[in-house]
Amino acid sequence: MSTERLIYLPLGGAGEIGMNAYVYGYGEPGKERLILVDLGVTFPDMDTTPGVDLIMADMAWLVERKDRLDAIYITHGHEDHIGAVGHLYTDLDTPIYARAFTANLARRKLVDQGLDGDVVETVSAWPEVQQHGPFKVSVAPMSHSIPESGALVIDTPAGRVVHTGDFKLDPNPMVGEPFDPDMWAEIAKDGVQALVCDSTNVFSPNPGRSESELPGAITKLVAGASGMVAATTFASNVARVRTLAEAGARAGRSIVLLGRAMQRMIEASTETGVLTDFPSVVSAEDANKMPRDNLMLITTGSQGERRAATAQLARGKYRGIELKEGDTFLFSSKTIPGNEKDVIRIINQFSERGVEVVDDSSGLYHVSGHANGPDLELFHNLIKPKILVPMHGEHRHLRRHAQLGEEKGMASTVAVNGMMLDLSGDAPRVVEYIDTGRKYLDGSVKYGALDGIVRDRIRMALNGLVVVTVILDEDDEPLGEPWCDIRGLPEVGESQAELVDVMEEDLNQFLMRADAKTRRDDDKLEENLRRIARQTSMSEIGKKPEVTVIISRMR
Amino acid sequence: MSTERLIYLPLGGAGEIGMNAYVYGYGEPGKERLILVDLGVTFPDMDTTPGVDLIMADMAWLVERKDRLDAIYITHGHEDHIGAVGHLYTDLDTPIYARAFTANLARRKLVDQGLDGDVVETVSAWPEVQQHGPFKVSVAPMSHSIPESGALVIDTPAGRVVHTGDFKLDPNPMVGEPFDPDMWAEIAKDGVQALVCDSTNVFSPNPGRSESELPGAITKLVAGASGMVAATTFASNVARVRTLAEAGARAGRSIVLLGRAMQRMIEASTETGVLTDFPSVVSAEDANKMPRDNLMLITTGSQGERRAATAQLARGKYRGIELKEGDTFLFSSKTIPGNEKDVIRIINQFSERGVEVVDDSSGLYHVSGHANGPDLELFHNLIKPKILVPMHGEHRHLRRHAQLGEEKGMASTVAVNGMMLDLSGDAPRVVEYIDTGRKYLDGSVKYGALDGIVRDRIRMALNGLVVVTVILDEDDEPLGEPWCDIRGLPEVGESQAELVDVMEEDLNQFLMRADAKTRRDDDKLEENLRRIARQTSMSEIGKKPEVTVIISRMR
Repeated sequence: MSTERLIYLPLGGAGEIGMNAYVYGYGEPGKERLILVDLGVTFPDMDTTPGVDLIMADMAWLVERKDRLDAIYITHGHEDHIGAVGHLYTDLDTPIYARAFTANLARRKLVDQGLDGDVVETVSAWPEVQQHGPFKVSVAPMSHSIPESGALVIDTPAGRVVHTGDFKLDPNPMVGEPFDPDMWAEIAKDGVQALVCDSTNVFSPNPGRSESELPGAITKLVAGASGMVAATTFASNVARVRTLAEAGARAGRSIVLLGRAMQRMIEASTETGVLTDFPSVVSAEDANKMPRDNLMLITTGSQGERRAATAQLARGKYRGIELKEGDTFLFSSKTIPGNEKDVIRIINQFSERGVEVVDDSSGLYHVSGHANGPDLELFHNLIKPKILVPMHGEHRHLRRHAQLGEEKGMASTVAVNGMMLDLSGDAPRVVEYIDTGRKYLDGSVKYGALDGIVRDRIRMALNGLVVVTVILDEDDEPLGEPWCDIRGLPEVGESQAELVDVMEEDLNQFLMRADAKTRRDDDKLEENLRRIARQTSMSEIGKKPEVTVIISRMR
Repeated sequence: MSTERLIYLPLGGAGEIGMNAYVYGYGEPGKERLILVDLGVTFPDMDTTPGVDLIMADMAWLVERKDRLDAIYITHGHEDHIGAVGHLYTDLDTPIYARAFTANLARRKLVDQGLDGDVVETVSAWPEVQQHGPFKVSVAPMSHSIPESGALVIDTPAGRVVHTGDFKLDPNPMVGEPFDPDMWAEIAKDGVQALVCDSTNVFSPNPGRSESELPGAITKLVAGASGMVAATTFASNVARVRTLAEAGARAGRSIVLLGRAMQRMIEASTETGVLTDFPSVVSAEDANKMPRDNLMLITTGSQGERRAATAQLARGKYRGIELKEGDTFLFSSKTIPGNEKDVIRIINQFSERGVEVVDDSSGLYHVSGHANGPDLELFHNLIKPKILVPMHGEHRHLRRHAQLGEEKGMASTVAVNGMMLDLSGDAPRVVEYIDTGRKYLDGSVKYGALDGIVRDRIRMALNGLVVVTVILDEDDEPLGEPWCDIRGLPEVGESQAELVDVMEEDLNQFLMRADAKTRRDDDKLEENLRRIARQTSMSEIGKKPEVTVIISRMR
């Protein structure tokens, strides 16, 4: 009997929506040949990751085993699937495979980091197959909210695995291939061992809607608007960007693309032939010379990102263009949970300018890119896998999706980041728990989520900071009095005296009375000075701050 | 011709949802007698107000004129209307008026702050009237998501003003008075000069739903659940709490109220006779001795607040009670924008425990407390005011509400915090702009939003901090080398050396070369040391931190 096994190990993306990174392996335990699917990022927020630029999965497990890693596949060009390519490639040092549009974006990511884009190999879609050790891998087209999203069909000696990537069942996605049930019937016909499946919209009870339902309403809206018209959506939603642009062109407006991502995506999709018929655009400079009701802006920043074109327009001018009373701004997008406040801030800023804001509350101007509950069931029925492994979701999504699978007679389990499953048998079996985690990119440095750096920042933000400086001479006698400096704390407290004055006095009194043993011992001295600074602060301002104690000894 | 005028001045709540505080005045310009309506708070968040406990309207304008302030009315007991009573009463030193339940809550707020609760006077509802200088004020019952919400009917020599407070048109709110169109027709029959009106739900296109639509679905859900059942809602939604409790009791479950606010609200509503028939409750201690499927918990923390009962149950035990596989948790509440991430975190934590979470996505378990678009129009038609002033809303809400008013032939305008309107004429007229703002309560201290304290905290959180210490002797010669201490920054950068070592060396080199004039000048020295610390940090870790420079001179 074979001791070889087929393993699945999510390092990111399972138990969260973001930073996707899934490992498959085949071989004898501990000697499996490996492939990695996706290398994405998550975006930081002020609550948990202030000052961080990007969040990535901790790849330590895989980096230690990179001699066994034969390929990296990127399913599509969304940041949560491709965003870490430039930052983690050097650690993994393994060829990257993707379809043309995604490969084009991946190369740009590498070049941005000063790396060689040639490590990315463009592959053709199913039925073309690449062999990597025990794996035969093919990229099967999937409809999604970005062109050329691909599922992976991974053949192994233990059977076929279908890894969906992100998908929806769109018969007419406008750009890119429609969902093709015949192709999937063909792929499934000899049996599928495991379906590893997108869970994002498992709670959405109605069948998903097609991208092709939008052009009518969008065209009507733009046609009926006076003044300047602007619209935002994810730049990577090339079909939507084109729909917006065509609606503008049809209304006799010149199209202006604002924001770097918007220009980059249209460039990449034109270069790769994904997009062949985009209306002609004018530059912001030229737009400034044109009558404003002849313009249609398409802008980045649908999630309220502060530096993006939308937020800048809401605050004032962007590249000389300004929205005014009677203009219209369309959010052709959904607000991702957590971004509500930023988006609402922008809507209010537009309101103050008299700009009419149209959002998606009517359901007319946006459709989701993910398969809803009924769509997932339809896909399960098409693939009929022995095992269903939900991925790409928070715990609640994975759990519901696994319940759905069990109800339909598929062996299913909730596997979160770090849980290694053996998929060789009739049911998934947890064989190992791997230490996983998050790495933060911050400036030019990467560090671990648990390194305490961000925790210290959050503490300073919540509690404020006191810096206590004490200078002692050769005999451990204080040279002058202690000095306090505060940051993020009110200057005056209960006693109506300056907080630093009260603290300095209390610290001085302590120093005067402290015995030689305490004064000699840096740790003891620091501990006492910190305690007193916190006590004084508590009684003066009702708050215990962070304290940095600096003891200088003149020797 | 009279030079007297009727003024309206929002100090909080207009251009935001939160910290309501509206001033009305009547008299000669600059000599108006004043009343204040509501004294609420807004809750802080990590993005904009880390470490702050509560946010209140800056009352400076009114405090300067408190000799002219005759009364403070509190329309209802929600925190955004009553929350600052304990914190700002001393500054205003003016009697507070409210109906019994609200007055009960206001007294508790004062007592919490060591103040005398007797300054709160309980008033009866319309048609009872209180006279305050030129004002005759009556509190007219309104249906809302808390008992005894009141609109104010304010009669002045310039005519009648109706200030709605928060309201919905609920014919059967279960607890408290139903919406009474006959009473409002009576109030409006001799003409209303101005309607100052809640705008919260102006964008909701369908008529609002009644609280009485919920008991059926909630009862069915609880009856069908096995294991322990728990539900959360706003504690102040006494009708809902009772519906939840009755659903539990009907299913043969003992009711456990968890969280201080929950107990306090039931206590206040029982004391004031608002609630007469609440099912009997058991303590958490007793509950621990009972079979778990005989229990129904009702918990605080529907918005995901980290210290509330719901969040604690999601993380583990709360007062000995723990939710497990097969239990049910119901969010009988809406998630307020900005709280999504906190609520979703809790849902995922419950999911990890195997608890079935039911939220309001079905619309069966929650109704809003505010009048929707069509309800507002209905109310406008009932009151037929000359002037409509939208309040209680962000700018987008006020703007839409004002558009609605204009369409219906009412003189209307968008008045945000600080805009003083003259409501005496046929149309509202801006007569003055008052400096308004926010005060932060932080520990035991209140300070202004623009004082820079919170800004400094945010900067430390985003950028990290370097403390640079330099000691100079009498001749301005450095005593030893500069010392650096970092917080919230990675220890090692590009050069693979310790960041503080590289910084200390760069700073030392500068000090060695600095001329006597620079070394003598604290400002110049500090500026240079800061610049160098930031430069070094930028080249080592790609980030410019905050820098505190401490220069000690031995004299």
